[in-house]
Amino acid sequence: MIRVGTGVDVHAYDAAVPLRLAGLDWPGEPGLAGHSDGDAVCHAIVDALLSAAGLGDIGGLVGVDGTTTANADSTGFLELARARLAEAGWAPVNVSAQLVGPSPKLAPRRAEAQSTLSALLGAPVSLGATTTDHLGFTGRGEGLAVIATALIERSSAPPTDQPA
Amino acid sequence: MIRVGTGVDVHAYDAAVPLRLAGLDWPGEPGLAGHSDGDAVCHAIVDALLSAAGLGDIGGLVGVDGTTTANADSTGFLELARARLAEAGWAPVNVSAQLVGPSPKLAPRRAEAQSTLSALLGAPVSLGATTTDHLGFTGRGEGLAVIATALIERSSAPPTDQPA
Amino acid sequence: MIRVGTGVDVHAYDAAVPLRLAGLDWPGEPGLAGHSDGDAVCHAIVDALLSAAGLGDIGGLVGVDGTTTANADSTGFLELARARLAEAGWAPVNVSAQLVGPSPKLAPRRAEAQSTLSALLGAPVSLGATTTDHLGFTGRGEGLAVIATALIERSSAPPTDQPA
Repeated sequence: MIRVGTGVDVHAYDAAVPLRLAGLDWPGEPGLAGHSDGDAVCHAIVDALLSAAGLGDIGGLVGVDGTTTANADSTGFLELARARLAEAGWAPVNVSAQLVGPSPKLAPRRAEAQSTLSALLGAPVSLGATTTDHLGFTGRGEGLAVIATALIERSSAPPTDQPA
Repeated sequence: MIRVGTGVDVHAYDAAVPLRLAGLDWPGEPGLAGHSDGDAVCHAIVDALLSAAGLGDIGGLVGVDGTTTANADSTGFLELARARLAEAGWAPVNVSAQLVGPSPKLAPRRAEAQSTLSALLGAPVSLGATTTDHLGFTGRGEGLAVIATALIERSSAPPTDQPA
Repeated sequence: MIRVGTGVDVHAYDAAVPLRLAGLDWPGEPGLAGHSDGDAVCHAIVDALLSAAGLGDIGGLVGVDGTTTANADSTGFLELARARLAEAGWAPVNVSAQLVGPSPKLAPRRAEAQSTLSALLGAPVSLGATTTDHLGFTGRGEGLAVIATALIERSSAPPTDQPA
């Protein structure tokens, strides 16, 4: 038994903060604004996983009022999502995420980012990157958009108080 | 035998019309413009299902000239898509859709919306929501974007006049 | 063993060049700018396939500096991606792509485009199209966005020097 899920996240660039993305620090790159560390890759993946399992979205997982997420390390959200899925009897099969925006350049650190995220989820995470030919808010360098798709499978019988 | 499909839909907000979204009425929320009821969640899901099955898109299903879709209830489009899939030997496994825009607030009515859409399709439908940090047309509150991914499976032998 | 992948591509319209899209020529339609032929459908599909298999993205496959891709026929990128997947022990199950933009009108040539791309990949490729209600860069007719989702499966044992 498998299911698919989709997640999208967008954060505005803020050159005054350090960049945290895909579970890595990116010294010298413009950062992303947000209540948490602004890691749009982690956030999109969390939403894709939760949606595949029918467990809501990241707002319900960690709150959106900023009090519990201030400066949070978003890799912790990934671990939390994986735990929620496991409790409900699901495990990730794989996740694919596409970064849409001008920076950072992903390719030189793709393998490192993929390894970090794959270890956190216990399943392969693949990352691609593209630009938008100078069009739209990502083309103007205002923000980074990430779209993620997740495949999950039954890892155990679901809790008896939940529908399968 | 399974297949995946993707659908996207965008409608502009129009505060002068009532909001119809995810098969629900949302009193007091700005509506969405469109020939039909503007239910971008239903439309994106229909496109994802039809695409997974290789059955074209919503334009081919219900027309785009406005004569047959004027003020139509888009939940009927979901039922029609499910029927077309069944005729071709396919059934939905699950659907995940992400709403991108400032309103309505999904969380308080997520369960109700998911139940409504899941009953219409006979398969789990999950909904997530996010904003774009005030960036782009969704960030400016001009419109709502929805992206849906569907997984389908063979429910019966396909009609003999169609390729598998 | 199956995996899912997502790809996005955006190109700006350039009325001074002929349109090449989804592996077809579209006489009389505004073209798409790009180092290659600008075929955003092929590019998004390549990214989705490579991401599903954990094989990077189109930048790594064909380069991004323009020297090897100048005026390239992007259907060759699809064939190259299929070959890379096969080398790694993967085959496409199906691909779904959604075009987001005002032109070209897809419906009259959907079957032809789908047949062309399906033959290149040896698996069903489905295409849908939508507009954005005059919103954003696609709504203003500045560019075409394509989002693709691919499902792949193990076709053979992976090479022994790669993790499964």
